Amino acid sequence: MPEIRKDPVFGRWVIIASERGLRPNDFLGKPGDHLCPFCPGNEELTPPTIYSLPGADGGWRLRVVRNKYPALVSEGTSDNRRDGIYDRMDGMGIHEVVIETPEHGRLLEELPAEAVTDVIKTYMLRVKEIKKDPRIKYVMIFKNHGRNAGATLLHPHSQIIAMPMAPLRVMQEIDGAAEYHIERGTCVFCDIVTEEIAFKKRVVAENSSFLAVTPYASRFSFETWILPKKHFSHFENIPEAEAGALAEVLRTALGKLIASLPDLSYNLIVHTMPVCEPEAQHYHWHIEIMPKLTHVAGFEWGTGFYINAVSPEAAAEILNSGKQYKV
Amino acid sequence: MPEIRKDPVFGRWVIIASERGLRPNDFLGKPGDHLCPFCPGNEELTPPTIYSLPGADGGWRLRVVRNKYPALVSEGTSDNRRDGIYDRMDGMGIHEVVIETPEHGRLLEELPAEAVTDVIKTYMLRVKEIKKDPRIKYVMIFKNHGRNAGATLLHPHSQIIAMPMAPLRVMQEIDGAAEYHIERGTCVFCDIVTEEIAFKKRVVAENSSFLAVTPYASRFSFETWILPKKHFSHFENIPEAEAGALAEVLRTALGKLIASLPDLSYNLIVHTMPVCEPEAQHYHWHIEIMPKLTHVAGFEWGTGFYINAVSPEAAAEILNSGKQYKV
Repeated sequence: MPEIRKDPVFGRWVIIASERGLRPNDFLGKPGDHLCPFCPGNEELTPPTIYSLPGADGGWRLRVVRNKYPALVSEGTSDNRRDGIYDRMDGMGIHEVVIETPEHGRLLEELPAEAVTDVIKTYMLRVKEIKKDPRIKYVMIFKNHGRNAGATLLHPHSQIIAMPMAPLRVMQEIDGAAEYHIERGTCVFCDIVTEEIAFKKRVVAENSSFLAVTPYASRFSFETWILPKKHFSHFENIPEAEAGALAEVLRTALGKLIASLPDLSYNLIVHTMPVCEPEAQHYHWHIEIMPKLTHVAGFEWGTGFYINAVSPEAAAEILNSGKQYKV
Repeated sequence: MPEIRKDPVFGRWVIIASERGLRPNDFLGKPGDHLCPFCPGNEELTPPTIYSLPGADGGWRLRVVRNKYPALVSEGTSDNRRDGIYDRMDGMGIHEVVIETPEHGRLLEELPAEAVTDVIKTYMLRVKEIKKDPRIKYVMIFKNHGRNAGATLLHPHSQIIAMPMAPLRVMQEIDGAAEYHIERGTCVFCDIVTEEIAFKKRVVAENSSFLAVTPYASRFSFETWILPKKHFSHFENIPEAEAGALAEVLRTALGKLIASLPDLSYNLIVHTMPVCEPEAQHYHWHIEIMPKLTHVAGFEWGTGFYINAVSPEAAAEILNSGKQYKV
């Protein structure tokens, strides 16, 4: 069973999951070394279907399964245990995969708008279902696309990890927003939305409900955030009718990123409040897309201090021009 | 001039340094596309020598120069300025490169013990010199080795970045250690040293003054820390006589890592107190070596929550066996 260990200095948690070393990898070995477990006809290669949407041909158009090589598993407890001077707990949690389309070679942003809307509605539905388990404190939705972003399979998919505690960096972000709210009486993300609409030069996509911008303090070149214009602290609490508007801005933003950076690898992360907390005035859910253009990790890993060679204003200009960018 | 921008939510600082996009890169293009600026005979390709040690042949055996494509520059002030709702400041600081050897193809751990000792003594000397500038609050020493670790040049080198504030993650680490010290009255790193010597199974190298271990909550497979047995909060304050003992443990630890993982990319970071602070009981300088075996970054970037497929006990066993590990 995976084990969660706590760093005694930093307080950060690490999942030690040896089974994950066994995952198939599309980026190592030769093409055809293994069957794609996410393609139609290979359903027996994944754990059973948790949720699916029917396709036109009697098959499925979207499928949710448990991750075969989970970082966390449903057995175990969330109790702390001592291990010498250290703390650990069972790797208890839920790890699901959302197979976004039956088509192996299609990118998320190339899917029809309705299919992207399906993906977003599925995220919402799964969070609402998963949070019924009282052991679950946080549900993280994320997508790794491309080798440099840590993906091991090409077939379009995203992941949902539900865990018995809120990750440290999530809490630091919420604390930062809470501090801003105490100081100024407003939500920092609402203020960012207002500022960016007025400033214009970092806007990449916009509709009546959502705004995509290259953030002021972008850690990565071409980093892009999608912010809802209406304040909600929890992603899963937005009206279902908003899913289409989010899909539209997400498709436009990802489409512009891929147009300017054809072989782009990226991580997409839904930032949201812990599911165990009520709706809050000081935090505002949003999506962060982090392109991984180069291995510029450098000393950033150890310091949280990032160096970015493309200013967000230059990045937005390139993305909006439709021109290709040479890394 | 580079600009430092503050994220209004998280409080993290980002350096926007467009000039860095112009750096030569050994990992792109063809070999021989550019001359190595760190090889003897090409000294005119770098800024002038700041410090050097003489070689046997009338040349140099180690050289320190200003980084030609700096993340921070010596002009400018450390004053905050408003930019809409955001904060920024000049990218003021110092960015130096330590060219560890004249030999292009030699790895740090393949150098004679005296040469590694020279590198460590040079780090100490440069920190002591740089911290005379009262604008400087923090001096970060780090080494990126290999493409996956963000290196752009092959020739063995390390970097020193001095900055007008302590990075957020450095402060979080120091705060974590301070909290432990308040709760238990001991230094958490001193306790780790005692625990690891007793537990044995995570020890990779040891001599009378230093201990190398795979830490209990390793974020990365084969992550290795080097801890001084004697408590000092500031790296630059250790007795110069300790440099040789540190070089010995560093060479052994890096040697074992490269033996088991031949094409290893890694980041090495010296964690130390801000130079503007006095020696402290609650913090203990150390070195963290973070191997970059796979692009397992995944959702770790956004969460600070890491997934590691090789337990530190298994990693230490492999490193001590001398066996090669297949990633």
